[in-house]
Amino acid sequence: MTDAGLFLTFEGVEGGGKTTQMRLLVERLRGLGYTVVENYEPGGTEIGRQIRRIVLWAANQNLSPTAELLLFFASRAQAVDEVILPALAKGCIVISDRFTDSTLVYQGYARGLGRDVVLALDKVACRGLAPRLTLCLDLDIELGLHRARARNAEDAHEETRLDDESLQFHKRVREAYHDLSRREPERVKLIDAGRRPEAVAECIWRLVEPLLPRL
Amino acid sequence: MTDAGLFLTFEGVEGGGKTTQMRLLVERLRGLGYTVVENYEPGGTEIGRQIRRIVLWAANQNLSPTAELLLFFASRAQAVDEVILPALAKGCIVISDRFTDSTLVYQGYARGLGRDVVLALDKVACRGLAPRLTLCLDLDIELGLHRARARNAEDAHEETRLDDESLQFHKRVREAYHDLSRREPERVKLIDAGRRPEAVAECIWRLVEPLLPRL
Repeated sequence: MTDAGLFLTFEGVEGGGKTTQMRLLVERLRGLGYTVVENYEPGGTEIGRQIRRIVLWAANQNLSPTAELLLFFASRAQAVDEVILPALAKGCIVISDRFTDSTLVYQGYARGLGRDVVLALDKVACRGLAPRLTLCLDLDIELGLHRARARNAEDAHEETRLDDESLQFHKRVREAYHDLSRREPERVKLIDAGRRPEAVAECIWRLVEPLLPRL
Repeated sequence: MTDAGLFLTFEGVEGGGKTTQMRLLVERLRGLGYTVVENYEPGGTEIGRQIRRIVLWAANQNLSPTAELLLFFASRAQAVDEVILPALAKGCIVISDRFTDSTLVYQGYARGLGRDVVLALDKVACRGLAPRLTLCLDLDIELGLHRARARNAEDAHEETRLDDESLQFHKRVREAYHDLSRREPERVKLIDAGRRPEAVAECIWRLVEPLLPRL
């Protein structure tokens, strides 16, 4: 959609260390002098945060799968218009913690709403914008959920709806990421997140470095 | 989508008296012994009300048109799943204050997002559900906005974002309703809302009565 800038996304199962790895990458890029704009989904804008509260609030257990899907794309459309497109137009590097691949995997595959419905909404919400590279942190499901639950207990927050899903659901999620990577091997890179964070960060850097614009 | 029940919607420009006319119709139907389920959009469910607050809150002036569109359909999908389809399956009469026609008219036509985008989202959110009859209260724009502003001043609420739109916008809205009525004359009925409420109610009753299921 734009020649300037670079759009990267982090994806993956719960507890794969997305937040840590994204922070390490952002710091390294900024240290080199790049302007990096961060986004996370759902909730990278003030309006997105209002939407995020609806989606993740534990009391909204009866949120219908289709309504949930539309809310994710509403948050995404707001981020595209308010944050991502303006930053790319200015030549920034934009890194998003989750994007349409998450919706494909969680709602399209694991909840069974189907790829076609998700891709139809992506067309409306993102209007052709897609990441140049997607870093998918891949991890054994039991280990990932153990990590995610430990983190949530520390934070003592109420946003537990997604983490309470069954193990089976998360296994479908992981399989779906593997499928995405097979469909688009050049864009979607699976990264073994079971290693030490420094080793994971180095693997990510080797993928990102060749794509960086000249400073 | 269902043979049981009857699905009616009220539509029209601001200040056309939708709320009053819907109340009169609901009371008349209940007086005859019908079970009537009411919905309004955005916001006919608890989750819809949370979405409504995001869309109508005056502080969210930078809500992107695409995000707004997706939020309207998220609220609608929740109402379809939680309220409308279950009620129709039980043979109830469901009456909604606004439905997809509002989105077509306000976002598709008047904000210029296009019919195709709105109809693509309708397919995802409503999965084929459409009203049997749409009662469109039609009124001179200046008179309608005058009524709507007087009402909002009385309520002293902050939900003024839509009413603050320009006169030109509301004229496009009215023209779009006229276009919908030309495209689907059997379903979308324009009703002159400039008359006394009792006369408008009688006109509505003459359209609804032939469609009523036997008690």
